[in-house]
Amino acid sequence: MEVPKASDVLANELRERILSGEYPEGTPLPPERELVVQTRMSRTTVREALRVLEVQGLVRIKAGRAGGAFVQSPGQESVATTLDLLIRGRRIRLASVHETREAIEPSCARLAALHRTTGDLQRLDAANEAIAAGGSLESFLQANVDWHVGVATAGHNEILTGIMIALSRAIYTVTHNAGFVDDEVRDITVRAHRSVTRAIRDRDPDAAVRRMSRHVHAYAAAALEVEERTAITVPATD
Amino acid sequence: MEVPKASDVLANELRERILSGEYPEGTPLPPERELVVQTRMSRTTVREALRVLEVQGLVRIKAGRAGGAFVQSPGQESVATTLDLLIRGRRIRLASVHETREAIEPSCARLAALHRTTGDLQRLDAANEAIAAGGSLESFLQANVDWHVGVATAGHNEILTGIMIALSRAIYTVTHNAGFVDDEVRDITVRAHRSVTRAIRDRDPDAAVRRMSRHVHAYAAAALEVEERTAITVPATD
Repeated sequence: MEVPKASDVLANELRERILSGEYPEGTPLPPERELVVQTRMSRTTVREALRVLEVQGLVRIKAGRAGGAFVQSPGQESVATTLDLLIRGRRIRLASVHETREAIEPSCARLAALHRTTGDLQRLDAANEAIAAGGSLESFLQANVDWHVGVATAGHNEILTGIMIALSRAIYTVTHNAGFVDDEVRDITVRAHRSVTRAIRDRDPDAAVRRMSRHVHAYAAAALEVEERTAITVPATD
Repeated sequence: MEVPKASDVLANELRERILSGEYPEGTPLPPERELVVQTRMSRTTVREALRVLEVQGLVRIKAGRAGGAFVQSPGQESVATTLDLLIRGRRIRLASVHETREAIEPSCARLAALHRTTGDLQRLDAANEAIAAGGSLESFLQANVDWHVGVATAGHNEILTGIMIALSRAIYTVTHNAGFVDDEVRDITVRAHRSVTRAIRDRDPDAAVRRMSRHVHAYAAAALEVEERTAITVPATD
């Protein structure tokens, strides 16, 4: 028989109150000592419950005299963290990450073409200029990821943006391969991004979908090919 | 200045060891007293670190004599939980949920047509028969969600499946509207699911994409229309 932990019971109740809006963003939860009196739970249990909510991104615990547990809106960051744990913890196939990008990114491009603001376009251009400027493998990968997350952000759909932020860490990791990112790949990437950005700027959703599909597919195929080549250590015997 | 919490430092270190495979799934982490000796941290801090890992779905804490913190593979469940918190906590627009489905589900149908097993098809048929059998609003919604998650599962991509499990809760919630789910909607749903399932059975990815797009789009449009109608309480003065 599973007996629920007291701290989980309290965490669940506080979570529902936060999500229902009873404790709005930025406000503090009742202080520890008050929760102890209200719930008749031990101070350790109350603290543990607050810690659970902190790990879930629902409160931020500040120490000191003006401290307490302050309600915050659960961020895309927490989705990114759990998806990252799923991908790393399950040793998910490289192909799955690429497949997921191919499933999601064309739709992000379509929404970006429909909803982009001038600020969104500036961020896309800045990220792509950072790629064109050259630099280390790491700065290329970061600028590349920034551009892709930028497209999702320009679509103004919070769920898809959260998913893309989560995927972007996996994308960074699976393409962290100096053998793959050579000058040619950088050059092709910059040009593909420019052409997708142009469709987004022109508010042309069909072109945005088509160009993003082509780009993500080609990038995935090239990355997988290099991965297979570098993973083969025993020469094939024809 | 932010000083990292001791429990976070320990949780981060244990997390990396779990993800690297040093502590494989099913094995226990070192007992609390051993971690206390190794780290020179207090027992409370060690416990808190283990609790953080538990909330993140990386260990399961069992009480009692044969107890301890047992490593588990981070599940799709934890992605679902955080995405659910994001959607509920941010009061994400209903339209965003539908938009996300339209972005993802056609790709899930395509992958299902490519990779489905006989078992996958049986689960899809069973879910759809449960819809056709009639019943309460709740049993309809559950069977509906089961079918959609079934399509993602049949695609054998762990990331997309995790995302769809997460979205399915939101889908359940946003379509929990008796005014929308009438006999006609049930009937249309069963027929649309049958036609997508047929394409998946026939290993026809193009038809699967096309039919799933049409189904999800029509369902979203109808749900949003009812939502707008029921949300208007002040009569329009035309």
